[in-house]
Amino acid sequence: MKEGALEAAGDEPHSKHSTSTVRRVMNRRGLSIMDFILRLLAAAGTLASAVAMATTDQTLPFFTQFLQFTAQYNDIPTFTFFVIANSIVCAYLGLSLPLSIFHIIRSAAKNTRIILLIFDTVMMALLTAGASAAAAIVYLAHNGNASANWSSFCQQFNSFCDRISGSLIGSFGGILLFILLIITLAVAISRPS
Amino acid sequence: MKEGALEAAGDEPHSKHSTSTVRRVMNRRGLSIMDFILRLLAAAGTLASAVAMATTDQTLPFFTQFLQFTAQYNDIPTFTFFVIANSIVCAYLGLSLPLSIFHIIRSAAKNTRIILLIFDTVMMALLTAGASAAAAIVYLAHNGNASANWSSFCQQFNSFCDRISGSLIGSFGGILLFILLIITLAVAISRPS
Repeated sequence: MKEGALEAAGDEPHSKHSTSTVRRVMNRRGLSIMDFILRLLAAAGTLASAVAMATTDQTLPFFTQFLQFTAQYNDIPTFTFFVIANSIVCAYLGLSLPLSIFHIIRSAAKNTRIILLIFDTVMMALLTAGASAAAAIVYLAHNGNASANWSSFCQQFNSFCDRISGSLIGSFGGILLFILLIITLAVAISRPS
Repeated sequence: MKEGALEAAGDEPHSKHSTSTVRRVMNRRGLSIMDFILRLLAAAGTLASAVAMATTDQTLPFFTQFLQFTAQYNDIPTFTFFVIANSIVCAYLGLSLPLSIFHIIRSAAKNTRIILLIFDTVMMALLTAGASAAAAIVYLAHNGNASANWSSFCQQFNSFCDRISGSLIGSFGGILLFILLIITLAVAISRPS
């Protein structure tokens, strides 16, 4: 500590200044690279969620003369909304990757970062809405509700329930990544250029 | 336009610079005042939502010998979560008002704005989760779901349904205000101090 202080005091003012400028640019570039990685992870998470939910269906191995028991994700409108929301967010993340790369190259850009932050915020709201609406229905599918006379169907459609529960993970992971993305962008914007 | 350009050209460099500095400070102060107003509105919206949902109950005017038909918000766990989420967000908004006033007075502050933006983002996620989970259940209460054999109960509990539907408005308004809040903060952070 003391040695470092002595060393710093020994530096010429000019070289010290240029070092801090270089460090600041490096820092902003580091934030941009982190932004890019977070975007890739979030895109993977939402894509996995959308695919896992959309490909879910189960047909029970027994049937009566007139009826076969099947469960599909689009029996419940909330799950359709979940798939649509995740797809939109995943497409948006894919489209925002070039802008993220542009920020790595030109790390001083501010206005494009603000635009990205605005869209990120809106997309986070959309993803959270889809994920938590689906979670509310999944909870109902597991536990039912005696007061409203809604019975749970997870006893019968076991693998269907496992699948829809699992597909929430990617979405909720995506929400956390979006929070980190917004913080990263805000810190990058706050750095003086 | 042309006159303004001539006027600007006629200005001395020094006075022009100080004018733009004053304008910039005014601008940042304007953003801080907008932040304060948005916070007040969002707090009012979430408070109204929490109170409207929490005070909802309906007892049907007919009953059998052993059974009286009542509906309360805490019959459904999702609505309890909705009330808790709205209360937490409302309390947070109340606590953040002093910091917002601080930003009006000291409009150059950057680090406290970033902290505020981080908390705002997390609170927006919480509010969105509560609101959209409740919306999914309200939809079910209105329409039911034939595939899952969940019947709607809005035919019987009419005023209960109206009340829970109405209480969503404040919450969704709050989400929009949060998006505006985050944008306002990001723009304020981007202004050079």
